[in-house]
Amino acid sequence: MMLLPMMVDVYDGNPDWQAFMASGIIIAVLSTGLLLAGRGRVVPFSSRLGFFLVNVLWATTSLAAALPFLLADVPVSFTDAVFEAVSGITTTGSTVLSGLDHMPRGLLLWRSLTQWLGGIGIIAMGIMLLPFLRVGGMQIYQLESSNRNEKPVERFATFGLWLIMLYVSFTIACALAYLGAGMTAFDAINHAMSTISTGGYSTHDASFGYFGNSGVLVVSIIFMLAGAMPFVALIRAIVQRDVRKALDPQIPILLALLVLLSALVTATALHAHAGEPLAMILHSTFNIVSVVTTTGYASTDYTQWGAQEVGLFLVATFLGGCAGSTSGGIKTYRIAILFQTVSAAVKELVYPNGIFAVRYDGLQVGAQVIRSITVFIGLFFAVLFVFSAALAATGLDLVTSVSGTLTALTNVGPGLGNVIGPAGNFSTLPDFAKWVLCAAMLLGRLEILTVAVLFSPIFWRR
Amino acid sequence: MMLLPMMVDVYDGNPDWQAFMASGIIIAVLSTGLLLAGRGRVVPFSSRLGFFLVNVLWATTSLAAALPFLLADVPVSFTDAVFEAVSGITTTGSTVLSGLDHMPRGLLLWRSLTQWLGGIGIIAMGIMLLPFLRVGGMQIYQLESSNRNEKPVERFATFGLWLIMLYVSFTIACALAYLGAGMTAFDAINHAMSTISTGGYSTHDASFGYFGNSGVLVVSIIFMLAGAMPFVALIRAIVQRDVRKALDPQIPILLALLVLLSALVTATALHAHAGEPLAMILHSTFNIVSVVTTTGYASTDYTQWGAQEVGLFLVATFLGGCAGSTSGGIKTYRIAILFQTVSAAVKELVYPNGIFAVRYDGLQVGAQVIRSITVFIGLFFAVLFVFSAALAATGLDLVTSVSGTLTALTNVGPGLGNVIGPAGNFSTLPDFAKWVLCAAMLLGRLEILTVAVLFSPIFWRR
Repeated sequence: MMLLPMMVDVYDGNPDWQAFMASGIIIAVLSTGLLLAGRGRVVPFSSRLGFFLVNVLWATTSLAAALPFLLADVPVSFTDAVFEAVSGITTTGSTVLSGLDHMPRGLLLWRSLTQWLGGIGIIAMGIMLLPFLRVGGMQIYQLESSNRNEKPVERFATFGLWLIMLYVSFTIACALAYLGAGMTAFDAINHAMSTISTGGYSTHDASFGYFGNSGVLVVSIIFMLAGAMPFVALIRAIVQRDVRKALDPQIPILLALLVLLSALVTATALHAHAGEPLAMILHSTFNIVSVVTTTGYASTDYTQWGAQEVGLFLVATFLGGCAGSTSGGIKTYRIAILFQTVSAAVKELVYPNGIFAVRYDGLQVGAQVIRSITVFIGLFFAVLFVFSAALAATGLDLVTSVSGTLTALTNVGPGLGNVIGPAGNFSTLPDFAKWVLCAAMLLGRLEILTVAVLFSPIFWRR
Repeated sequence: MMLLPMMVDVYDGNPDWQAFMASGIIIAVLSTGLLLAGRGRVVPFSSRLGFFLVNVLWATTSLAAALPFLLADVPVSFTDAVFEAVSGITTTGSTVLSGLDHMPRGLLLWRSLTQWLGGIGIIAMGIMLLPFLRVGGMQIYQLESSNRNEKPVERFATFGLWLIMLYVSFTIACALAYLGAGMTAFDAINHAMSTISTGGYSTHDASFGYFGNSGVLVVSIIFMLAGAMPFVALIRAIVQRDVRKALDPQIPILLALLVLLSALVTATALHAHAGEPLAMILHSTFNIVSVVTTTGYASTDYTQWGAQEVGLFLVATFLGGCAGSTSGGIKTYRIAILFQTVSAAVKELVYPNGIFAVRYDGLQVGAQVIRSITVFIGLFFAVLFVFSAALAATGLDLVTSVSGTLTALTNVGPGLGNVIGPAGNFSTLPDFAKWVLCAAMLLGRLEILTVAVLFSPIFWRR
């Protein structure tokens, strides 16, 4: 993958191409060495191995992705290089770089590529590994095969192939649409990669504020939504040749939440400013879709619209898209099941002997799934507190500490307040805060529990 | 109870005594009327009736307690009178009044009395009703009788009697200790009532900053802790004549959390300011104990100590004291059981076939209790979001909106930020925000679920 930005820099006559070549060689040598060292040894698969692999994979990929930032001719520290790479691979999109408009094109392409790779990586993990590991209620998205004689490996191969085809097609369609809406070819390719991965890296400091063009915003809304769709359901519909399989219950719920939030933001913003209604609808929808799908583009500094909008965007930062998508956050199916769990529990208080089932997608949800989901939510808030307190301990104000942790944990991108808000940047944070946020981005991306098992003594017992 | 402040105002020659007499007469006439209207009719007890009664009781008591504020010769609006009464009865301690130092003594005593009554009311409800209604995991605190032939009514009468004796003794001991530490008799009586009820109303605008006296702070720490203890365990030890029954597992956990938080606040504050260490330890401990026990006194504006302290006090605002005490918040037993639930769930990810029990107080915790607790936490955060957004919609900043809702929901008292922080006051908030906070205080006091059942359509079905 590093060949692509290398070729761009060679074409531009920018000496940074050496950074990509050097990074590529270092990674190739190290991986070949590891491959040879482990040759011939087959370890039987277990959930313990699965947890270990996922954690190691995302950590090492992040470090590998940081190499070009370190070796290129831009003044970034080791901390900043790792932060930018983790933010890319986890498709968060928080950045410590500024002056993007004048940055070498190879490095800009590399930032977009990290998000694009991270995006397909997380869908693959969400489809193939997390349901098996029963992380955070993901077991309800376990793959069923249409052919009972098909082996799991074949099933994974079929799904993997369709996933790649779908992801690449969406990316090409998005790039062509951006091009048609007036972006340059380079901007279109880069933004297509960070849109479909709901990543949010832009090639301009002003993000989508750079394009004074409604068409670009509409295209972006469509493909951010595509990235937040449950790929598992889409692929199931293709494999089983049954379009009804694509109708995951998450889709109408997500769309309803988006319409509600966009309407609230539009209404309160119009009430306060009496701006031009159509433009306000477009910008409210764009920024809400951007935050809820955990992309993190901004068309303007929406936190300046008013205090109400700050509150609404804070709520939006929690939600996230569908399971099996490139989105982070709490995710639609968890919100749906939690809502029903609470409702059932309240009914049982009134009728102590009544049985009130929690149903999802036409099936009764088991107690174990409900517990997985409530434990996920509990851990989510525990991490949010502890990490926010760690950021506050570096002297950051409360809004920056809490919104920074939250936006990292949900892989959204921008926080709230003057420092890390949509008009701001993470560069001025202390190094310690950046490492805390790196940890939060990885925790959020791996659904917290996948990392938490490593901290359980039982995991390391023979 | 209104006779007491009336007598004080008569003694002081303050015409406000008429306000208390008028309020007392209005309430006496209304209650006698209701009593006569319902005479002779016996309604069989059901959990539905229990829920209904609890809600009506706290709402009407709050309105009744608001009458003297409205009728007295102080310039308060209807909204402010209700806010002050709800804050008193729920033992929250947020105030809209200022100029307390020069306020008629009758009204000051009335504020303290509302908290003292609210305090014993909530213990009685926590011991006798919530476990029966199985609200938020309180079923584990169901009363067992030492004598199996004893009827529930007799058991409740025994416990009620001991509760009153214990509560009154603690209050008298606290008042005497305050007197010994240098308070005036009037201040000692008022602060004793708002200390043991972990309420937090003071007779001075500067709260405990008025008393430049370490002894007063030490006395307050001891009796705030007493108010946060599990009265159900203390009474059980008395009734069953077995001191070991008082050793509720919540007590060591709560004390450990308090020591940890106080140490962190002391260390970070000393690191930043290099103040006098002993004074810093005392003030850190006092203010942390005040917030965690949900009292809400302040000896100084601790939010000025630094950004770290703001974060630590935010975390402290969630915790709360023990179940069956006068404290609000999430409460120690829920924190303990949640922590174990998460730990068990993580272990089960590693060993999918392992059984990892959640134990509390030497017994295995059932799935239903765990679900009650997780549903409580889920609803807690849902209410926190929705109500924070409602406050933000009135144009309040994010710190005020979130910390205001949180401090109301946990019945602590002061929020964070310049408006409603420990040096601030709730008087400048818009009326709508005050009504939202009144609702939050009542929801928090009734453990949310008790109110939530009223919003379930099934509750109203015949």
